[in-house]
Amino acid sequence: MKTFDIHPTDKSLESVIWQKIDNLNKPKGSLGRLEELAAQICLIQGTLTPSLSHPCHLLLGGDHGIEREGVSVSPREVTWQQMINFTRGGGGVNMFCRQHGFKLRIVDVGVDYDLSSFPDIINRKIARGTKNFLYEPAMSEVEFNQAIETGSDLVDECIEEGCRVLSIGEMGIGNTSPSSIWMSLFGDIPLQDCVGAGAGLDNAGIRHKYEVLKKALENYKTVNGQQSTVNDFLSYFGGFEMITAIGAMLRAAEQHIVILIDGFIMTACALASISLYPASQDYMIFTHSGDEIGHKMMLDIVDAKPLLHLGLRLGEGTGALCAFPIIDSAVRMMNEMNNFENAKITKYF
Amino acid sequence: MKTFDIHPTDKSLESVIWQKIDNLNKPKGSLGRLEELAAQICLIQGTLTPSLSHPCHLLLGGDHGIEREGVSVSPREVTWQQMINFTRGGGGVNMFCRQHGFKLRIVDVGVDYDLSSFPDIINRKIARGTKNFLYEPAMSEVEFNQAIETGSDLVDECIEEGCRVLSIGEMGIGNTSPSSIWMSLFGDIPLQDCVGAGAGLDNAGIRHKYEVLKKALENYKTVNGQQSTVNDFLSYFGGFEMITAIGAMLRAAEQHIVILIDGFIMTACALASISLYPASQDYMIFTHSGDEIGHKMMLDIVDAKPLLHLGLRLGEGTGALCAFPIIDSAVRMMNEMNNFENAKITKYF
Repeated sequence: MKTFDIHPTDKSLESVIWQKIDNLNKPKGSLGRLEELAAQICLIQGTLTPSLSHPCHLLLGGDHGIEREGVSVSPREVTWQQMINFTRGGGGVNMFCRQHGFKLRIVDVGVDYDLSSFPDIINRKIARGTKNFLYEPAMSEVEFNQAIETGSDLVDECIEEGCRVLSIGEMGIGNTSPSSIWMSLFGDIPLQDCVGAGAGLDNAGIRHKYEVLKKALENYKTVNGQQSTVNDFLSYFGGFEMITAIGAMLRAAEQHIVILIDGFIMTACALASISLYPASQDYMIFTHSGDEIGHKMMLDIVDAKPLLHLGLRLGEGTGALCAFPIIDSAVRMMNEMNNFENAKITKYF
Repeated sequence: MKTFDIHPTDKSLESVIWQKIDNLNKPKGSLGRLEELAAQICLIQGTLTPSLSHPCHLLLGGDHGIEREGVSVSPREVTWQQMINFTRGGGGVNMFCRQHGFKLRIVDVGVDYDLSSFPDIINRKIARGTKNFLYEPAMSEVEFNQAIETGSDLVDECIEEGCRVLSIGEMGIGNTSPSSIWMSLFGDIPLQDCVGAGAGLDNAGIRHKYEVLKKALENYKTVNGQQSTVNDFLSYFGGFEMITAIGAMLRAAEQHIVILIDGFIMTACALASISLYPASQDYMIFTHSGDEIGHKMMLDIVDAKPLLHLGLRLGEGTGALCAFPIIDSAVRMMNEMNNFENAKITKYF
């Protein structure tokens, strides 16, 4: 796997950053989470005047072999149908990107359909869906490495356009299943606490999904014993869109780009990135906690306090996009608010 | 007091509204709170294609006699200093208004300073601050009625410009004190549970504030017995900016305008509006729950689930403004997302 040169942010700047924040014309601490966000972004960019210019949204699409086991409420064809729909501007992700000025890159990294005739879909297909991890590894090592590099390359293309903030979403019917298994393995959490309704399973559906994933995990452990590395189980269960997301997160962290982490699936990818490179967490903002069982547990593993709790479970990165204006407010606070002196206001503590 | 003709929204539209929402190209319910918001706004406007055109923010300033008792961390002069600062664009409220396209109306309804030479401050001064309610009513009945009418008139001016969504903020050093007393009276909640840190009191400060308010409430009850009406205690304790806000909320509800309710103080005003006209609640969106003790209790009284929990306690209506893009997303969802049929996607439930 490609290596990344990721450093923690330079905490020696914290005192001067908080000095600026505490001297803005407001009671100390009165902009709450916005102040914490502002401080984090200043650290990421190593500046007192941060910028979120050229926001980019990567929408990564891929199919999953495990979908054949009936673990999802939606059929596989919805992945490619939605990818095409996104090119027409009518999806949830389109609406949010327009609203908040994100450049949307729709990328096929593993959809089980020929999308090459759609010029608005970037073709980086690694394979037509992963293999079924109930019986075999989802992808080969070569495919895994290709996905990591694809994610890294996509971020470089964003950076060339001036991007300073990146959000990542996914379209992949069935991808809460690998996410649940990753969560169980990363957090050492019983699998049953990691399996939820996905896009809308009923209780019987959740039980079935749990049984399938339990068996897949047992098979994996039988084959790999206790010897497996993080990379092993990432490639055994992961989706192409998920591994690509990890590559994108790591390259973004390496390049001091602010990374917006969306819901359950992207949080699982963030956990993977942090496991590989702990310092990458310094560059991540956790934007939304959904209702999926286990999402909160995952956030707790990395002590993340998500910004929003709006019950979103659409995927596509919509939670991250929905939270963007709050992050933008934090940056504007640093750049636009007066301090007590130039506002001519009695500093009141 | 001026009367208002406020009707509940027409709930017979709910089924057709939800039919539209449930047929958008997303798993049912997967946009969570956005869907509930969209439904509420459709009901308010009586349409399937709602609009948030010409958003207006009323920033109402007033001083409080009770500030003389040392119940606030900030001195009284900060009210007028901040009002002037807002005209220069450097306050928190300015930043949010610019970010989200709100027209800001800075209105002096009771600041203890002559602001008439500032053309960007709308002069509707009722008096230079309220009287000290530790010893006497904060305002007369005439002043109370004038404040209600001022709020109503301000909303009419917004509507003339095409405003469909209104947020209201306040600038008034000391105004968590009347809010705490209102909360205690509206919610029948022990006063000690209603008194918090305001903009930043320490524990000794909170104790002193509680003792002052307790004595004021005892004095009031001695004079008024159990006979007092809602209007009585609103005018006895209220600030001019708070009563004006109530007039604005009631007129906005009468005119089917979406009303964004901010933090502790504006929630107290919303409670007052709902007490006077229960149907006005149909038009209110509760945007933010701060850390002030008792704010959550107030929200519970009217069963409100605020959108954000970001620890904001700046006032000025910044919580409401910060939440606006989420409300805007809900409206865009209704107007911009494809449905399953025109998106050519297998309807998957």
